[in-house]
Amino acid sequence: MELTQSLHRACQINPDGLAIVYGQVRRTWREFHAAVASSAGMLRQLGVREDTKVAIVSMNSDRFVECLYSVPWAGGVLVPVNFRLQFEELAYVVEHSEAELILFEEQFSALAGELLQRNPRLRHAMVMDAERSALPGALSYGHEVARAMPLPDTRRGGSDLAAIFYTGGTTGVPKGVMHTHDSLFQFLLTFLICERIDSSLVHLHVTPMFHMSCIGVLVTTAVAGTHIILPKFEPEEALRAIDAHGVTTCLSVPVMFERMLFHPNIDAYHLSSLRMLGYGASPMPPRILEEARRRFPQLQFAQGYGMTEAPGPVYLAPEYHSQEAVDAGLTRAAGRAVPTCEVRIVDSEDHEVEPGSVGEIVIRGPVVMAGYWKNPELTREVIRDGWLHTGDGGYMDSAGFIYITDRIKDMIISGGENVYSTEVEGVVSRHPAVAQCAVIGIPSEQWGESVHAIVTLHDGASATSSEITAFCRERIAAYKCPRSVEIRTQPLPMTAAGKILKAQLREPFWANRSRRI
Amino acid sequence: MELTQSLHRACQINPDGLAIVYGQVRRTWREFHAAVASSAGMLRQLGVREDTKVAIVSMNSDRFVECLYSVPWAGGVLVPVNFRLQFEELAYVVEHSEAELILFEEQFSALAGELLQRNPRLRHAMVMDAERSALPGALSYGHEVARAMPLPDTRRGGSDLAAIFYTGGTTGVPKGVMHTHDSLFQFLLTFLICERIDSSLVHLHVTPMFHMSCIGVLVTTAVAGTHIILPKFEPEEALRAIDAHGVTTCLSVPVMFERMLFHPNIDAYHLSSLRMLGYGASPMPPRILEEARRRFPQLQFAQGYGMTEAPGPVYLAPEYHSQEAVDAGLTRAAGRAVPTCEVRIVDSEDHEVEPGSVGEIVIRGPVVMAGYWKNPELTREVIRDGWLHTGDGGYMDSAGFIYITDRIKDMIISGGENVYSTEVEGVVSRHPAVAQCAVIGIPSEQWGESVHAIVTLHDGASATSSEITAFCRERIAAYKCPRSVEIRTQPLPMTAAGKILKAQLREPFWANRSRRI
Repeated sequence: MELTQSLHRACQINPDGLAIVYGQVRRTWREFHAAVASSAGMLRQLGVREDTKVAIVSMNSDRFVECLYSVPWAGGVLVPVNFRLQFEELAYVVEHSEAELILFEEQFSALAGELLQRNPRLRHAMVMDAERSALPGALSYGHEVARAMPLPDTRRGGSDLAAIFYTGGTTGVPKGVMHTHDSLFQFLLTFLICERIDSSLVHLHVTPMFHMSCIGVLVTTAVAGTHIILPKFEPEEALRAIDAHGVTTCLSVPVMFERMLFHPNIDAYHLSSLRMLGYGASPMPPRILEEARRRFPQLQFAQGYGMTEAPGPVYLAPEYHSQEAVDAGLTRAAGRAVPTCEVRIVDSEDHEVEPGSVGEIVIRGPVVMAGYWKNPELTREVIRDGWLHTGDGGYMDSAGFIYITDRIKDMIISGGENVYSTEVEGVVSRHPAVAQCAVIGIPSEQWGESVHAIVTLHDGASATSSEITAFCRERIAAYKCPRSVEIRTQPLPMTAAGKILKAQLREPFWANRSRRI
Repeated sequence: MELTQSLHRACQINPDGLAIVYGQVRRTWREFHAAVASSAGMLRQLGVREDTKVAIVSMNSDRFVECLYSVPWAGGVLVPVNFRLQFEELAYVVEHSEAELILFEEQFSALAGELLQRNPRLRHAMVMDAERSALPGALSYGHEVARAMPLPDTRRGGSDLAAIFYTGGTTGVPKGVMHTHDSLFQFLLTFLICERIDSSLVHLHVTPMFHMSCIGVLVTTAVAGTHIILPKFEPEEALRAIDAHGVTTCLSVPVMFERMLFHPNIDAYHLSSLRMLGYGASPMPPRILEEARRRFPQLQFAQGYGMTEAPGPVYLAPEYHSQEAVDAGLTRAAGRAVPTCEVRIVDSEDHEVEPGSVGEIVIRGPVVMAGYWKNPELTREVIRDGWLHTGDGGYMDSAGFIYITDRIKDMIISGGENVYSTEVEGVVSRHPAVAQCAVIGIPSEQWGESVHAIVTLHDGASATSSEITAFCRERIAAYKCPRSVEIRTQPLPMTAAGKILKAQLREPFWANRSRRI
């Protein structure tokens, strides 16, 4: 299968249907199909060949969606970049991916300029949303595409590489997760099966397309529905878009939905078109479900659990979001295995454990990544015998519901972003006053979890919480920085081997909550 | 992906749910999972290894379903045999497939005996439904499975061969259509996407499992629903089963549903559980839809169009079965491309034609067969540049609806069975009195089409219609024999090249009908 197949089909079954809404831009499927063919022609002229990596640094936009199809159409490989990363991380991603072309939004022109200067492999930089860029020498997408010849689809597909998504790592170095056309297409099919979407879909994109939440793009195209694109999430803009365009579905994380649901102006908008809210990263808090039921009785919820390495293998269906399900504790579950995947809980020797016993969650199925780009050792470490070892701890009940209890990889999920404790600890520890440091996730009604640092200081040294936070801000992306820093005078609890007992540190924060231990 | 994956998942998410109902047999998913493991252990003991072909000659039964999973579990390849074929055809299928083991129902013991005698490669014959068989030396499934050790799943999957389905051929020789685990799994996923099935599924199996209608088995297992199995279709038995077991879905052909709908005893049964009727092989006649709407307002219809070589690439969704759709002529369509497949209409040089123009229907996607078993030449002939050439003629409208206008391969579909004209012509021509012969499909309210032969006789020779029919009955399966034979005294119309103008012969029968020309 190839990603572009959905686009050909959408143009066949709904040529005059509205495909894209972005600001003042409106395109039918026929127009969008033609635009992608031209964009691919332009990319080909710029030297994109089979397996050429194309980095994209952009908020959500019509052209982002266009490039999600035109890059594979031209034979290339997508490298969508998380622009919220700190510069050194971004530079690493662009260099490591071997990108030869960088597409950027004008607001990131300075950044693009620095990347270009740093990386001789980048042959072209192209501004996506302006006639000319502040970056000297940058090409203009609009200008180039207007004079490009449409390219016939190169029909890359199957096990060909489609995209490399970078994700944080325990070692502090981002890892490039390789997805093939097949693995992304299988993610798409899994989603279509679970969500039971039809062509009346009007999908609001509010989560960044550089994430696996680009699934919203794939799904909308697959059913020839309508993409409603906001550059980024802003609660009132989202409410306005739902009203204006009759949005039926949205993918988000609980905190985003909460900010819409409890927005002071919510009553100013008609929101009855909204039928399905998909979410991930953390369970949906019962008080949000309760308020949503009161306000939107027609709205269904569904949770997807997964990771960049294996998107969407576990699904909590709408029927498990009722008040009865809340009372039965089911909304604390991540869900059950989807029809395309197998999920098991295994012990440290990879033997399956009994229902109810905690172990590592492992996943097998066609959505599992092809591996880490240029890192076969790590690939072999996490994919063993066909099973992806997620690093998440959890248990399964006797009806196959999976509950996450801990992240073995020591990862925090805050507002939908993955934060690796060890990476943050590495930065905090470099502060000259810090002696010991442990970074943990603590419960946050708003963010699911928030990043919390517990430190001790060297004898005689002094530092305040805000000094430590500011130190981090200069060195890593804002979303990874501790939201709270606790300075202790007693040494942190350690194992005999000298390892900080993080479970013990976490425990008081998570008492009486079952999601984490 | 592997076929057995669904079974592991069903046992995980619904272990105590009712999996199988057949006569007095009741099994939960846990029991069924264990039964398959034991059956696979037994097959392994009997020498089934990777790629060993296992022929099954049986009506629908619990053990048929068991073997649909245990054969691939043990590493083998399914060869489900159409027991309605004439003996020579059956013998060919068993020999050509290289089957080493034959599983049969006791009612076919004499047949199994003949096959065994004819074919030295068959190492074992095993009766599926009796303690002992009339066939000397036959093993008993029940006896063997009781003492077998469960086998761990061999995990054959992906591009490994899963099954060979034999289908009639224009040359008169059945062709072995190879399906891999992946292609059958993709058929399953396509079905799940289109039909929007959930785990409340109670599926009634009335079409033969040796066909691609075994999809009903795959789907029911994938959602961990309940299989209700009848050995074969009998209208009142089907009505009784729907009532007794709360059946929600059924796959059939229009003629089967018609016989249920217009059954004199229909009022004796509660049928309100029935929600979805999937059908194929021919459009659903409007008068059936009308009566169904009157009697079952809750019932939805959906059509699948496809073939053994590419099951399920086209789908006519429930919304296109309303009275408005009938009035708009949409129910005459075969449907639109499913999200996993691409469909095009091409001319004789494989160029796509304009909407509304008739050409050959070609299909591309993961459901396309791996090829014909031991016939790479024919495989290359029908799969060109990744596109399966269906041999069906048709056109596509501007919204992607596909209408079948003719079967280029000259095939008749009668009551859901494929009949190749050339094969029947070959038999009729062997009758000593017959000079010229053309076999065509003519409209039949009951069967969709029925097989009609038009012949001329040699000068001075004489034969009656019923003599010619009887002659055919001795030589080919009953469903392939002409239901009507027309003896003409004028020579049949021919092309300059001496080819009979079948379109001209068909024309008066199909006047004012749009499905065929």
